Amino acid sequence: MKNITTWIDEYHKGSRFGLNGKILIKKTSKYQEIIVIENEYYGRALMLDGCWMTSLKDEKYYHECLVHPALSSIDEKSSVLIIGGGDGGTVRECVKYSQISKIDLVEIDEEVIKISKKFLKEIGGEAWNDKRLEIHIDDGVKWVKKTRDNFYDVIFIDCSDPSEFSNLLFSDYFYEECKRILTPKGILATQSESPESFKNIHINILKNLKNIFKVSETMYSFVPIYPSGIWSWTFASSEDLNLSKQNYDEALKIEKGCEIWNLNFQNAAFKMMPNKIIKELDS
Amino acid sequence: MKNITTWIDEYHKGSRFGLNGKILIKKTSKYQEIIVIENEYYGRALMLDGCWMTSLKDEKYYHECLVHPALSSIDEKSSVLIIGGGDGGTVRECVKYSQISKIDLVEIDEEVIKISKKFLKEIGGEAWNDKRLEIHIDDGVKWVKKTRDNFYDVIFIDCSDPSEFSNLLFSDYFYEECKRILTPKGILATQSESPESFKNIHINILKNLKNIFKVSETMYSFVPIYPSGIWSWTFASSEDLNLSKQNYDEALKIEKGCEIWNLNFQNAAFKMMPNKIIKELDS
Repeated sequence: MKNITTWIDEYHKGSRFGLNGKILIKKTSKYQEIIVIENEYYGRALMLDGCWMTSLKDEKYYHECLVHPALSSIDEKSSVLIIGGGDGGTVRECVKYSQISKIDLVEIDEEVIKISKKFLKEIGGEAWNDKRLEIHIDDGVKWVKKTRDNFYDVIFIDCSDPSEFSNLLFSDYFYEECKRILTPKGILATQSESPESFKNIHINILKNLKNIFKVSETMYSFVPIYPSGIWSWTFASSEDLNLSKQNYDEALKIEKGCEIWNLNFQNAAFKMMPNKIIKELDS
Repeated sequence: MKNITTWIDEYHKGSRFGLNGKILIKKTSKYQEIIVIENEYYGRALMLDGCWMTSLKDEKYYHECLVHPALSSIDEKSSVLIIGGGDGGTVRECVKYSQISKIDLVEIDEEVIKISKKFLKEIGGEAWNDKRLEIHIDDGVKWVKKTRDNFYDVIFIDCSDPSEFSNLLFSDYFYEECKRILTPKGILATQSESPESFKNIHINILKNLKNIFKVSETMYSFVPIYPSGIWSWTFASSEDLNLSKQNYDEALKIEKGCEIWNLNFQNAAFKMMPNKIIKELDS
């Protein structure tokens, strides 16, 4: 009985993406249903409330694109906030930058961290033990509200799709608060959903950030296990963003250790907006 | 009973991508099983031998990326060959270029054309009636073999994944023959599989084309219904390829009518090779 496999599917508008495997854990936390499955190709994969979050095989597609465009281009980066990110992948990419002296990880669901540390330990790896990391089990919106002005150099929003308890992470109110607690040259980096499967949410995020920050730029790349496989990340700042102005020595060192991201890839990804999204934003 | 819906899944290495809907036709031709399903989000979708080929919703992701990088950058383009392409999408993008005087479409399976014309008519649309188009029900490999030297300006290989009857379309022999029948400045454009889901096949195509042609370049973009969602297209020529040297007036006119492709998108897509593929090709 121990090796029985099953299909676990994410359902999305009449389509489904499923992984077959042995379920390692299935548990309902205070916030959501958490499943970890062992799949022959994707390795271990994490599902929250019916949506695939990450897998050992393809997590780098997501985490490298969230972290490196911001950290490789910003000069001052001593203090970093991660909202969500309970699987540890965003922390792992952040600790590669020696200039960072403090990382606050604010995850609402303690169970996600516990389960990730136990079943997906390759994702966070040694980063969980990094002395610069402090973990706070808290609501990201509340955390931001109680943070003083000009506190963080970079904020990463590494959250799931809009839902009852994550909706506010996509709101004007929240973005305004993030702007307030960022240093003047600071960068907000957020996953910004799929231009295909979550087109309306995607466009709303882009429009909101454009209204609130002086500049915002969106890159498009791939996350195989997410609906449609196309994903986006948006970077916003109150001063001119210069995402291709790199600390080259550091960036070249970091790209050597990356599976997906490199400087050319990054600069190109910011030009990959599908024509239909350009037209919709212009209209 | 008429409105009963069902799940049809493509299975790939322990994962599956399924569409729910009413099956409009399910038929086994001389070569393969053909299914057309009506899905609420993707619209009508075509499956051949268990693999999703195209859908009304996302076919432009594929066809625009196969056709426009080649046709927008080549000066002389009177004569075009399409191998496969029985859904009509590649023809539809080709007929937008007034300089083309002759398009030979060589599809092995007549049923794919018949079914596409009947159930997926929005894909081919009026292009099926274009006077420049000649349809040949034939084996692409045989067609190329019997074609005289220097005949076509552009060859599009718009085929399914390697299988018993399509394997040769990925062979050295076939690529050599394509080179022979291309005009000296001609371009071979082929779908080149996913760097993620079909990594070994993908890398083999790239290495083979690099060995046989003077130059070849690969672009990466998205096809939501294909395994992993990441897809690639490779362009090869016996002379220097200059895929960003465009006839701008024509290209700008064409990009206006595109859902996905535009000149910036194209130029960026050629730099989207994931780092792990770069490393593997260099090793």
